[in-house]
Amino acid sequence: MRPIEWHEDRVRLLDQTLLPAQVVWLDIRTAAEAAEAIVSMRIRGAPAIGITAAFGMALAARAGEDREAARTLLASTRPTAVNLFWALERMKKAGDTLAEAQAIAAEDERMCQQIGDHGASLFQPDTRVLTHCNAGALATGDYGTALGVIRSAHKDGKVRHVWVDETRPFLQGARLTAWELMADGIPIKLICDNMAGHFMQRGEVDAVVVGADRVTAHGDVANKIGTYTLAVLCKEHGIPFYVAAPSSTVDMGLTSGQDIPIEERDGKEVREVFGVHVAPAGVEVRNPAFDVTPHHLVTALITERGVLRPPYVDALRGY
Amino acid sequence: MRPIEWHEDRVRLLDQTLLPAQVVWLDIRTAAEAAEAIVSMRIRGAPAIGITAAFGMALAARAGEDREAARTLLASTRPTAVNLFWALERMKKAGDTLAEAQAIAAEDERMCQQIGDHGASLFQPDTRVLTHCNAGALATGDYGTALGVIRSAHKDGKVRHVWVDETRPFLQGARLTAWELMADGIPIKLICDNMAGHFMQRGEVDAVVVGADRVTAHGDVANKIGTYTLAVLCKEHGIPFYVAAPSSTVDMGLTSGQDIPIEERDGKEVREVFGVHVAPAGVEVRNPAFDVTPHHLVTALITERGVLRPPYVDALRGY
Repeated sequence: MRPIEWHEDRVRLLDQTLLPAQVVWLDIRTAAEAAEAIVSMRIRGAPAIGITAAFGMALAARAGEDREAARTLLASTRPTAVNLFWALERMKKAGDTLAEAQAIAAEDERMCQQIGDHGASLFQPDTRVLTHCNAGALATGDYGTALGVIRSAHKDGKVRHVWVDETRPFLQGARLTAWELMADGIPIKLICDNMAGHFMQRGEVDAVVVGADRVTAHGDVANKIGTYTLAVLCKEHGIPFYVAAPSSTVDMGLTSGQDIPIEERDGKEVREVFGVHVAPAGVEVRNPAFDVTPHHLVTALITERGVLRPPYVDALRGY
Repeated sequence: MRPIEWHEDRVRLLDQTLLPAQVVWLDIRTAAEAAEAIVSMRIRGAPAIGITAAFGMALAARAGEDREAARTLLASTRPTAVNLFWALERMKKAGDTLAEAQAIAAEDERMCQQIGDHGASLFQPDTRVLTHCNAGALATGDYGTALGVIRSAHKDGKVRHVWVDETRPFLQGARLTAWELMADGIPIKLICDNMAGHFMQRGEVDAVVVGADRVTAHGDVANKIGTYTLAVLCKEHGIPFYVAAPSSTVDMGLTSGQDIPIEERDGKEVREVFGVHVAPAGVEVRNPAFDVTPHHLVTALITERGVLRPPYVDALRGY
């Protein structure tokens, strides 16, 4: 299930704001359209943002647009995921060719398979695994990072079922992860974000696996808001907390997670659900899109190169 | 703001499923209508459920209905809040008179004022306090338990602002607590449930105060799903975690919180928000309405009699 595909002279994107009710593909023909799709979260997920930006630069180059203006525009879309900046830099070095964008997409897909297979080795039989947000095929070139791990573990017969956090405010879990896993015939139980602790307390969660938007050289992890709370709950209950991400998510330029810029999005996402008001008009809202999990709460990092264990400052050397 | 009032020959209830968009009052004329209002969560909150059940019995007695059938029906509405059973028992002893139902309502209102004033003594100036669900006027006879504490602390000039968890799936925080506190001019910031940990990590939460649906003789607390996670986060960050409830919420017949029955509600509440589908059709859902916070995570219990500190097994003796 590739959410981003090159088609003749354009990029086709699955509009993730409309899932699961509607399956609508968008034709993206300019860097500006690619930027809009990222800002509006029609496409989301760190690797998929990087791939979309790469295709955006290829579109700009093919159309003879001002490439540096296009690069600046795409770089301004979302601040937290480092894959965006990594992909733009890589495209720049390669002359913004379509071939390079396609290589980034193909490599991401291959890396997700490798992440999945490495991660599956961590699972025991009959695992009830919990995931947050959507680090699936929809967030990557295909297959997914956290959901790649779950897919591979499921193929190995190790997954009893998946706890899917709904992931307010954007509902990536309820809308996207549930949809992806049901399509693959993987058994799931959907819960609200505030229920995970209850099922951990009752001994009904064996492992947690999530994706990442940025990993520092010391192993601190920025990921979807709510991830940090899950990591604290895992510590309290002695449950392994795994993070799955390609090496392009590692930012060796930062050591502390406190230096990762955290995007704050429009309060409307909290006040409304699909246009339905769920709070009083004009109520003040905070809406950080990400949080930071310190490295000491991460049991293992799973990349395409293998399973990394603490201390991450050593394990990540050379990334 | 009394959500339940006796009016001539009937009970008037504010329909909390429609707030904040619509302010609709219901006329309740029979025990069956009272039971339906409780099951459908038109009225909710442990003390308010008890008061409604008491008026339901008074209606049954006045109409010459079969009182034991009415009592059985009302007792079957919701299993977790103990105030329901406490109120039905008290009504039975008093012959199901209207005067007794009115006394229960009036006492609850007075107890909330006392809880508020005791609780406010725990606050430092300039407190950023977080609350979950709605333990406010709408959940009680008036004034509220957790929100009673916040109201009293705000009167004393001790509240900088209130973090309001939206409280999925029923959105009591976004819909009811936000509405109540805004009406009182108390500054709030509404967040999704999965954001509390992030703001605690950043040092922006000074205290948490919640209500309770049942407190055991050892001080274990059943309250709205998500409460336990907040208590774990408070422990991790060294933030005081307060529980405010009238003595009618204490169930001296139970010691361990694990013995409290936890209501599981219809999965539709998770799959839909005001009728809008937010997850794939047919997705399996778990929807526990409450969780249990063990006594060792509770910094203080606030009742109308004062502030109780651990060990609660001693502090609650005589309740």
